[in-house]
Amino acid sequence: MARNRVAFQGARGAFSEEAARRLLGDNVVYLPCERFEDVFEAVRSGQAGCAVVPIENTLHGSVHENYDNLLNFKLPIVAETRIRIVHNLIGCSEATLAKVKKAISHPVALRQCLTFFKQNKRIRSEAFYDTAGSVRRVMEEGDPSMAAIASKAAAAYYGAKILKRSIEDDRHNYTRFFLLKKTAPKRPAKKGVPLKTSIVFSTPNKPGTLFRCLSAFGLRDINMDKIESRPFRGRPFEYLFYLDFLGSPDDPACRNAMSHLGEMTDFVAVLGCYPQAS
Amino acid sequence: MARNRVAFQGARGAFSEEAARRLLGDNVVYLPCERFEDVFEAVRSGQAGCAVVPIENTLHGSVHENYDNLLNFKLPIVAETRIRIVHNLIGCSEATLAKVKKAISHPVALRQCLTFFKQNKRIRSEAFYDTAGSVRRVMEEGDPSMAAIASKAAAAYYGAKILKRSIEDDRHNYTRFFLLKKTAPKRPAKKGVPLKTSIVFSTPNKPGTLFRCLSAFGLRDINMDKIESRPFRGRPFEYLFYLDFLGSPDDPACRNAMSHLGEMTDFVAVLGCYPQAS
Repeated sequence: MARNRVAFQGARGAFSEEAARRLLGDNVVYLPCERFEDVFEAVRSGQAGCAVVPIENTLHGSVHENYDNLLNFKLPIVAETRIRIVHNLIGCSEATLAKVKKAISHPVALRQCLTFFKQNKRIRSEAFYDTAGSVRRVMEEGDPSMAAIASKAAAAYYGAKILKRSIEDDRHNYTRFFLLKKTAPKRPAKKGVPLKTSIVFSTPNKPGTLFRCLSAFGLRDINMDKIESRPFRGRPFEYLFYLDFLGSPDDPACRNAMSHLGEMTDFVAVLGCYPQAS
Repeated sequence: MARNRVAFQGARGAFSEEAARRLLGDNVVYLPCERFEDVFEAVRSGQAGCAVVPIENTLHGSVHENYDNLLNFKLPIVAETRIRIVHNLIGCSEATLAKVKKAISHPVALRQCLTFFKQNKRIRSEAFYDTAGSVRRVMEEGDPSMAAIASKAAAAYYGAKILKRSIEDDRHNYTRFFLLKKTAPKRPAKKGVPLKTSIVFSTPNKPGTLFRCLSAFGLRDINMDKIESRPFRGRPFEYLFYLDFLGSPDDPACRNAMSHLGEMTDFVAVLGCYPQAS
């Protein structure tokens, strides 16, 4: 059934799949996609009931490509979660840390484990397409001198063995994911969980414009959680702003702020209103 | 001589090297480094006279890792530039587009050329460590059925042949680079080129704080060019803000704004003042 099918980018066992499990539990069917655009298209076309996409990482910043997709596909955000990115050395059942001579993974993951490679000079690194896919490859080869670097979810999915946990250099590595659906639920409220709203708006690049826009929220004591400016693609001298604020467009103060913002901007869109992740 | 040596991350021919050439001309010696941290360390230790690092990309957002390095190493930004990321299919001298069966590159570059691969189904893609390094590998192999995907600078550096130009899916792909030195020049002004200043500051996460901070600039009609919030690493509930504004801390209005900002924040640092890129 398409309804409990969740689309995500990457191979089975990807960090997006871990985020999906956190958001949706185990009773789902996974639909791995090649590109982020395919993930959005899967929900638009009804092939999947929802999608999980990364939106920002503490080391790498926002995934602008997915902000673009949110705007183009108009799929509402219905939940968020944060996943700590933990890289593990993973091998087949006969492998041990001492036997490993080669580790494969996505170059970004390999570069996040340089201390491990410095401490284990006999292990050379080799680029692979993605993290979870590297575990699949290692299991296909069945060679105990070869290992992958990926999440523990990837190890579990392919029935592989974790040879060394948490080999990443920097533990402050978190990715925030959004859960997207085709339509927003009527009442996103969960008792006791505050709501957050993500919006995007554009302004002409004139002195003071951004400040006036933020005054719509600031003067109403609405807390802004994230703000990011970005040049508007194909429209030089115009800016897009992504803003997350605490509250829902149903709250009177937030509703007034949004209407105030509308007076000052060329366009405003609500990307979603959802329970704030703890 | 260390003075005209420029450090950058990646192999020779990387996009950072293209940015360095744009910023510094041809009369420099290149020092390729493995990690961004090594690039900063090269300048701090005096091994290189300057460094060129990517700071944001129109598809992938800000490189937070380098914002962290800017804060930790305290190397001032002295110039900025923007490079359009153009991916080319590159082979050895005997290669032609019709002969190519395999294309290697960094997975991010490969994923940015999916339309090309859909139109050329006989060419399969294979992950490699980085874009420029993939050209070196192709030249080492000398196999006309193998190609790399990288910049034209990489093709030029390794004496390789461009088989097809500009095969990337999305042409709105620009990366902004900073030029860093050990100490800032006294007068960064170039006649007729407006100055830009990059700062970072932190605030407690309380309603209205960010708005009050921006009022220091907004109420003085100082144009803010980029703003980005980010959770403060290791300090939950505190935020870092990156702000670029037009002007220099030597202008009276900007000096007053900075001092006003100082009254409201836990810390403020100037990352650099430099001529605005056109």
